[in-house]
Amino acid sequence: MKKIVLGVDIGGTNTAYGFVEETGSILYMEQIPTFGHEPVEDLVGRLKSKVNSYFEHHSNLELIGIGVGAPNGNYYTGIIQDPPNLNWGNINIVSLIKEKFSCDTMLTNDANAAALGEKLFGIAKDMNNFVVITLGTGLGSGIFCNGNLLYGHDGFAGEMGHLSIDPNGRLCNCGRKGCLENYVSAKGIRKSINEFKENNPDDSFIQSLPKKGLDGRVIDRAYDDGVSSAIQLYNNVGKQLGIGLAQVAIILSPEAFIFYGGYSNAGERILGVARRTMDDYLLSSQKGKIDILQSGLPQNEAGIIGAASLLWTNRVP
Amino acid sequence: MKKIVLGVDIGGTNTAYGFVEETGSILYMEQIPTFGHEPVEDLVGRLKSKVNSYFEHHSNLELIGIGVGAPNGNYYTGIIQDPPNLNWGNINIVSLIKEKFSCDTMLTNDANAAALGEKLFGIAKDMNNFVVITLGTGLGSGIFCNGNLLYGHDGFAGEMGHLSIDPNGRLCNCGRKGCLENYVSAKGIRKSINEFKENNPDDSFIQSLPKKGLDGRVIDRAYDDGVSSAIQLYNNVGKQLGIGLAQVAIILSPEAFIFYGGYSNAGERILGVARRTMDDYLLSSQKGKIDILQSGLPQNEAGIIGAASLLWTNRVP
Repeated sequence: MKKIVLGVDIGGTNTAYGFVEETGSILYMEQIPTFGHEPVEDLVGRLKSKVNSYFEHHSNLELIGIGVGAPNGNYYTGIIQDPPNLNWGNINIVSLIKEKFSCDTMLTNDANAAALGEKLFGIAKDMNNFVVITLGTGLGSGIFCNGNLLYGHDGFAGEMGHLSIDPNGRLCNCGRKGCLENYVSAKGIRKSINEFKENNPDDSFIQSLPKKGLDGRVIDRAYDDGVSSAIQLYNNVGKQLGIGLAQVAIILSPEAFIFYGGYSNAGERILGVARRTMDDYLLSSQKGKIDILQSGLPQNEAGIIGAASLLWTNRVP
Repeated sequence: MKKIVLGVDIGGTNTAYGFVEETGSILYMEQIPTFGHEPVEDLVGRLKSKVNSYFEHHSNLELIGIGVGAPNGNYYTGIIQDPPNLNWGNINIVSLIKEKFSCDTMLTNDANAAALGEKLFGIAKDMNNFVVITLGTGLGSGIFCNGNLLYGHDGFAGEMGHLSIDPNGRLCNCGRKGCLENYVSAKGIRKSINEFKENNPDDSFIQSLPKKGLDGRVIDRAYDDGVSSAIQLYNNVGKQLGIGLAQVAIILSPEAFIFYGGYSNAGERILGVARRTMDDYLLSSQKGKIDILQSGLPQNEAGIIGAASLLWTNRVP
């Protein structure tokens, strides 16, 4: 029997899962909708069906544990605590999964999982001080300091999406103002588009965008075609991101910020401006010394591998 | 012969030094003016005279090394890099002291030295995630993560005095805007007083304060006597500090912020408002869970012990 770990990466929109070997190889991976408006038991139930169905066809595999990365997932308590983009309240996902699957289960923040994946198998292999930023529905961050994941006192370190970049800025659904993810994330870009629509009734590109739901690639293409409102939109996102990165760099002085997740596919369209803005806002001793990079790992892979590595790393042989 | 380490804590105004045993006990300590407008060689020369004079009367002691804490002191390079409140440019203080004293020398940030002292012998003995904030001419911070000092990639982590709390705020001498130390430090309070003087020509207390140089205890006493402009002044400082602390807590989620240095003697007059403001600005999961404490170590002791501990910790027996 070959031992494997199920790695689960719960996002605001989709949940990716995969079966991970001790080497970090993923035998199989798939993505299912998270349906954050439904109870979490619905997601766990659908996951269980998927896993059962896979094991029916792979009798040579033994599931030794499950590692989960989720927004506001707490490594210490096993609880997903009131995740800002999912209507679940506080739920002990570790208990829930243990009960359903009858195997060892561990939890961390989704962004921490991505950072672990990046450290073990990605672009951060040789780095000891870096920040992985996941751009999806929201903005998450996983921080490595001195070669270790930073959990802070209570497991809630690294909530960079809620760093305020403007004390009078947009109201966040956390109740605070100007949180970075209200500008830099699918949700933030949606807010920018809606503001843009209101202020620019004659801009044909902006007015052509749907009021809800949006494939970021539509903006990418318009940007590449030189559509000025698309360029302005991304320039603003890049600028706000750069301001936030500089604030974090003042505290952590990392070697690099590494971008991962859906919206990071916009790549240099956003990161170019972010890099220049960050440098403008850094102390002179830091200017030009902090990299802004894109993850080289395929979409979702870092989150799955990182979540699974919680089990591989912590398992007593 | 009893082995001792010289611990030196260079501040914007004064430099404290002391002779530290391996147990952390200080045999003797003293404070001399830094004179940041003179070349650094002047300070090193005066320090050398003081040390020589002490050793003339203590022939049973052997100086095995010197640990230095200084603003912008870099652990990795031995260079004090363009310290914002001293006119020294970039100087390799480690080379300079080694040459003058002919013994092992190590350098760190003055706030990192205070944090080391607090961890080894102070209020943070049992903490693994905390931030020491030094309030003097400027605002420095030393950060412990996972039980270790955070240096970041290049030794410049923890520049919390340069966290911007207002993108349109006061111009800092680092060239950026709204840096925390322009509000919360002797320099920041000085700026507030000068603004206050201009806007309140009839306020007798504020107008009675000198235009340059100020003993913080004058404001403390007025605050205790219920002078409304003194209360307003400290309330503003506390509020701005609280906003900055919340930003840092979002990233690090520490167990406590520990205050140390000249202006921290104002104590609860500033920290009370800071605590309430920080809690207002924290995520709901963090509210009420992060302590704001004052160092219990006598003035300057943490900085001296922490600097000296660089040598005791790193010395090969």
